[in-house]
Amino acid sequence: MITADIKTTFIQIVGAENYDDSKAGRLVYSYDATPQFQSMPDAVIAPRNTKEVSEIVKVCNEHKIPIVPRGSGTNLCAGTCPTEGGLVLLFKHMNQILEVDEENLTVTLQPGVITLDMINTIEAKGLFYPPDPSSMKISTIGGNINENSGGLRGLKYGVTRDYVIGLEIVLANGDIIRTGGKLAKDVAGYDLTRLFVGSEGTLGIITEAILKLVPMPETKKTILALYQDIEAAARSVSKIIANKIIPTTLEFLDQPTLQVVEDFAKIGLPTNVQAVLLIEQDGPEEVVDRDIKKIAEICTAEQAVSVQVAQSEEHAMALRTARRSALSALARLKPTTILEDATVPRSEIAKMVRAINEIAEKYDVKICTFGHAGDGNLHPTCPTDSRNHDEIERVEKAFAEIFETAIELGGTITGEHGVGMMKAPYLELKLGQEGIAAMKAIKNSFDPNNIMNPGKVFAKDSRKRVVVTR
Amino acid sequence: MITADIKTTFIQIVGAENYDDSKAGRLVYSYDATPQFQSMPDAVIAPRNTKEVSEIVKVCNEHKIPIVPRGSGTNLCAGTCPTEGGLVLLFKHMNQILEVDEENLTVTLQPGVITLDMINTIEAKGLFYPPDPSSMKISTIGGNINENSGGLRGLKYGVTRDYVIGLEIVLANGDIIRTGGKLAKDVAGYDLTRLFVGSEGTLGIITEAILKLVPMPETKKTILALYQDIEAAARSVSKIIANKIIPTTLEFLDQPTLQVVEDFAKIGLPTNVQAVLLIEQDGPEEVVDRDIKKIAEICTAEQAVSVQVAQSEEHAMALRTARRSALSALARLKPTTILEDATVPRSEIAKMVRAINEIAEKYDVKICTFGHAGDGNLHPTCPTDSRNHDEIERVEKAFAEIFETAIELGGTITGEHGVGMMKAPYLELKLGQEGIAAMKAIKNSFDPNNIMNPGKVFAKDSRKRVVVTR
Repeated sequence: MITADIKTTFIQIVGAENYDDSKAGRLVYSYDATPQFQSMPDAVIAPRNTKEVSEIVKVCNEHKIPIVPRGSGTNLCAGTCPTEGGLVLLFKHMNQILEVDEENLTVTLQPGVITLDMINTIEAKGLFYPPDPSSMKISTIGGNINENSGGLRGLKYGVTRDYVIGLEIVLANGDIIRTGGKLAKDVAGYDLTRLFVGSEGTLGIITEAILKLVPMPETKKTILALYQDIEAAARSVSKIIANKIIPTTLEFLDQPTLQVVEDFAKIGLPTNVQAVLLIEQDGPEEVVDRDIKKIAEICTAEQAVSVQVAQSEEHAMALRTARRSALSALARLKPTTILEDATVPRSEIAKMVRAINEIAEKYDVKICTFGHAGDGNLHPTCPTDSRNHDEIERVEKAFAEIFETAIELGGTITGEHGVGMMKAPYLELKLGQEGIAAMKAIKNSFDPNNIMNPGKVFAKDSRKRVVVTR
Repeated sequence: MITADIKTTFIQIVGAENYDDSKAGRLVYSYDATPQFQSMPDAVIAPRNTKEVSEIVKVCNEHKIPIVPRGSGTNLCAGTCPTEGGLVLLFKHMNQILEVDEENLTVTLQPGVITLDMINTIEAKGLFYPPDPSSMKISTIGGNINENSGGLRGLKYGVTRDYVIGLEIVLANGDIIRTGGKLAKDVAGYDLTRLFVGSEGTLGIITEAILKLVPMPETKKTILALYQDIEAAARSVSKIIANKIIPTTLEFLDQPTLQVVEDFAKIGLPTNVQAVLLIEQDGPEEVVDRDIKKIAEICTAEQAVSVQVAQSEEHAMALRTARRSALSALARLKPTTILEDATVPRSEIAKMVRAINEIAEKYDVKICTFGHAGDGNLHPTCPTDSRNHDEIERVEKAFAEIFETAIELGGTITGEHGVGMMKAPYLELKLGQEGIAAMKAIKNSFDPNNIMNPGKVFAKDSRKRVVVTR
């Protein structure tokens, strides 16, 4: 609990204008982009620098006050919902790009920088930051790092973790540590950098980051392949990789998703086919041309009913934008949209899509599936209504079965959205009790008072999402 | 201490033929490739499977017996020297490639597999595993993972950590956990996979691994550029990257190294120049040709006195082999060879090489420098004689100053060789007390009895290498 004395201390640290415990102020930060989770923080605080973060953390640690670091709250795992009250910590003052180093190909920045602002800055210098979460227009780099965000280019380029090479972190005891650096190689002790990427704010607060950049690919091309048979689409994915081609993007949309995306984006997508693959390759022109030609041949050989190369960058951009809008488009259907993140080895995509459709039918719920086929990272999405308790109950059961199926196929419960509060009850499916015990041991060693984003990653008990709604 | 009863238990677990506490048997495993470190283990044990590893670990944990997992002992940080006695654990029975999955581009294998054997197996299928530590003919995959081995291709392709996507691990309490999987994306909890890569056997014992593979590049070409001026060579490195070309390999050798390598390999390397860059590019033929042409232009513009493209794969291979033989060649000069691993941001290479030469002069020791210029990962190497205590004292001081300089330049004390026992006293330079405390907290949480490769990574006190020699 934040007493009057503690409040005075916080205000002394950040100034009165950066501490808000009004009801209206708190309400704004009582939820994030995840449906069905809401909980009031005790206050919202916006430190101006790392030293202030450290001072805030020391006070919280002494008085066991939870801290929830928050970027733009676009995560889909209730990762920034202040489920146990305490402080929501904002980075609105810590939002500077500190340096673009063209010799070492790095960018150094504060956590509050909007992802797309950073991308625009470095692309102006001919550099490229591959991770492209669909939320990148709004999301912050700090949020991306804490959630280890993925995106459409993961197949060829990897995810956020693969581009974070140095961090400044405030630990629960207030210590400020720096990990890594502008270094291609560094084995001085344990890899704290990667441990913190994706740790969802539960181990410490990231206050600065060094990201690795790569040269901008010379060119890119986009193909749209249409199928009347989901298996044929999945076979095309496998064949492309087996032919030693790694496209930048290899996206899948099923017919229901296609329909709502077209209704939303109106760019002339076909809606009378069972599945679409949206494939992009980038690189030197000769290579892109050669790969695109080969990919088109493979799709045709695998019974695509149409294979179309985007004839202009505008057309390609429209296709990409349509794909990125899938969640927004699906969200228009019903009051509540639950988007999931089950991930399987690439070879199991067809089995997984089939299983999702069977499970949806079994529980009589609508599930649209799209996602990163090349990564095996699917987003089965359910338009539903949280007020319909009977349906929500069935939705829960369907998703639980989807997670179990993903694990049976050698997959995981979340490919890029994180565990947060939402998927904590399912984590044991993937890790077993021993794996969770190992992770909890790390959590306890860094944060013995459990002040860092408590209630996330680790479930208190096996309660499911429907039960935690308030 | 291993009592008669405990010995009986170990023999019950692995069979008498897999337990050796003879003096001769122990002597063989009392040292590794690191000069100046030797210490007798109490016994050597070779489990046949993960279950046996778990049983051994449980016994060790109960009786606080140190365990040192060991591959081929090629590490250069005294990482496998049993400095506190106990068991040396060998993987000679756990040396199978379990699966090459051509659809998901993965190989699943046991830790005892020799790196080059795995590489030969997957290359026969047109697949590519980029990490190429110079020891790969002898080293094991388990050793590579524990040390996070680098190699010549790190600039373009990254290091071992970037290719390990799943692990089976036996923890200090005997628990067997599995992390990751054949998954391009997985954010289910903390990234234990990357935490264990490079943890030097101090957190648990890796008993199986899944490695990510990539398609084999179509072709590669090699350039040798000669310089009379080290600064010009360093400028060429920066200019190549600034021109948005990321070569596979960008190696640097100074004149003294060049001389001994040529004396050793006799392939006609020039020995009358101050520095050499050995540059390799791989990829599609058009791109390789274009990049190599551009690289040659840059080197020429930066005052290279000669720029020569290898005219055949045999010639290129001879150059690569010569580079890889640098340590062996240098080792012929004097009874003791101390090879170091200071690493700086790429932009600081020239400053670092200059500093190394000044430091060598200051302490009147011979230091030859070669390494991965594109990574900023240098290997200053000192041919010396451990019996000459006065000189060794000066060598120690010189290397301490080299580490300090690397840190001042934004670098690290080890880029790819690990901390082990050898560099533990210097770790604080890079991490500060707070960083070491954070890492120790992880160590304690996983291994409260400190049985997992004790004495490595964390220094007991600030004693330096000369003092620990016995």
